[in-house]
Amino acid sequence: MEFSRYNKKFDYSFTFGSYPTIELIKNRPTSVIKIITHSKLSGSNGFEIIHRLAGENKIKLNQNDRLIQKISIKDNCFVAGVFKKYTMSLDGQSNHIVLVNPKDSGNLGTIARSMLAFNFSDLAIITPAVDIFKPETIRASMGAIFSLNIQLFESFKKYKEFFPERNLYAFQTTGSENLSKIEFAKPASLVFGNESSGLEELEKGFKTRVKIPQSDKVDSLNLAVSVGIALNNVYSKGL
Amino acid sequence: MEFSRYNKKFDYSFTFGSYPTIELIKNRPTSVIKIITHSKLSGSNGFEIIHRLAGENKIKLNQNDRLIQKISIKDNCFVAGVFKKYTMSLDGQSNHIVLVNPKDSGNLGTIARSMLAFNFSDLAIITPAVDIFKPETIRASMGAIFSLNIQLFESFKKYKEFFPERNLYAFQTTGSENLSKIEFAKPASLVFGNESSGLEELEKGFKTRVKIPQSDKVDSLNLAVSVGIALNNVYSKGL
Repeated sequence: MEFSRYNKKFDYSFTFGSYPTIELIKNRPTSVIKIITHSKLSGSNGFEIIHRLAGENKIKLNQNDRLIQKISIKDNCFVAGVFKKYTMSLDGQSNHIVLVNPKDSGNLGTIARSMLAFNFSDLAIITPAVDIFKPETIRASMGAIFSLNIQLFESFKKYKEFFPERNLYAFQTTGSENLSKIEFAKPASLVFGNESSGLEELEKGFKTRVKIPQSDKVDSLNLAVSVGIALNNVYSKGL
Repeated sequence: MEFSRYNKKFDYSFTFGSYPTIELIKNRPTSVIKIITHSKLSGSNGFEIIHRLAGENKIKLNQNDRLIQKISIKDNCFVAGVFKKYTMSLDGQSNHIVLVNPKDSGNLGTIARSMLAFNFSDLAIITPAVDIFKPETIRASMGAIFSLNIQLFESFKKYKEFFPERNLYAFQTTGSENLSKIEFAKPASLVFGNESSGLEELEKGFKTRVKIPQSDKVDSLNLAVSVGIALNNVYSKGL
C-alpha cells in the first residue's frame, strides 16, 4: 500500500517524529498500520525505543526515505507512524473538557497536552470542528491525543442528552463567577467556545458561568491558554 | 515604494487584518508607513474604524488589491498595515516576563496577548529568538505586541547586568516551590526557557525556582500555556 500526503477523508493518519510516534505505539498499538523510518533515524534515541516497542507489539518497520519526505509536514522528519483512525467513548463518571466548534489544530493539540498534564482524560468536541487526527493536531499535542478519550457530538444539546447528569460550567469572558472562587462539583464539564465566538447561544442549562478575571485591554485570551488556566485551577483544587 | 512578502531583514513589517492593524495605528501611530486596503474592505466595521484612525493620525490609505494578495500571509485579507520597526526599553520598576530563546512565533504572540490580559507590559527576550515583528507573531498576538515594551538582550547575563535589582523567578518543571504557594516580590522577573530546553544553564542567581504542579504523564506544558498560568496566578494575587 502506498500512502499520500494526509487528507481529512482518509481512514488513516500519520504521526511525524519520534515523540508522537512513540506515544502512538504505546497507547494505541492495535491501531498502528506500520512505522516508516528514514535512514537517518538509526543511532538516535528514538530509533532504539521505536524498534523495541515495534518488536513488542509485532508492528512492521519499513525504511523508506522517499516516502517520509513525500508525506511529512515537517523538515528533518526521520520517522512516521501510520495508523487507522478509531472512535472512542467518554467516561460518564469523569470530568470532561467540552470544546464547542474548535477551529485551530494547534490549539486543539495544545489543549490535549494540557489535559494530560492536569489529569483530565475525557474530551468532548462539538462539531463542526477541526479534525482531531490531522497531523498538525497530533504534533501540537506531542502525542497526548493518543492518551485521551475523545468523542464527537453534532450539537451541545446532543452532548447533554448523552450525559444528562453533569455539572456544566460555561467559561465566558462575561461569566459571573471568578474561577478562583469556584468549588467544582464532580462530574464536572468545563465548556469553552471557539477561537472567535463564545457560548451565548448555549446559555441554558449551565450550573455556573465562570470568568477568568483579566484586564479590559484584550477581548479574550487564546483558547488553549484559557483551557490551561482552568485545568490548572481545577488540578490545584484537587477535583 | 513597492513592498515584497515579509523578510526578517526588512526594516519594516506588516499587520494583516483589521484587528492587528487597528492596534498598530492606536498604539504606534508614528511608526506607520501606510495602510493598504482591499476593495472588499469597504462596508465592514473595520473600514470605518481604520478610516477614522488613519484620518486622525494623518496616515495614508491606499487601495491596492493586488499588493495585499501578494504580501498577505492569510486568505481573505482586506487590510494591511506597513510599519517601520522600532526599538523599546523596559521599565525597571515594572514586573517582567523574560523568555530565553523563544523559537515559535505563535507562542510568542500568544504570550504577548496573555501579558496584556494580565497587566504585564514589559517583555525581555534573550536572543537568539524568533522575530518579534514577524507577521505570524503579530497575528497570534492579535496586535497585543504593539502595546508592550519589548527589549532584546544577547544573553541572560546581560539582562541581569542591565537590571541588577530584580527578584528572579525561574519557571522549571524541576522547580522546588509550587506556583500557588509563592508570594511574589516586586519588581519580579518571571523567567521561562524555550520550547525544547529549560533554564538549567542559567541556574545561578534565581531567588526561587518555581514549578507548576502537574502529572508525570507529559514532559512539560506548552510554553504559552505555562506563561499564561503564571500570569493568571500573579494577577489573581494582585502583584
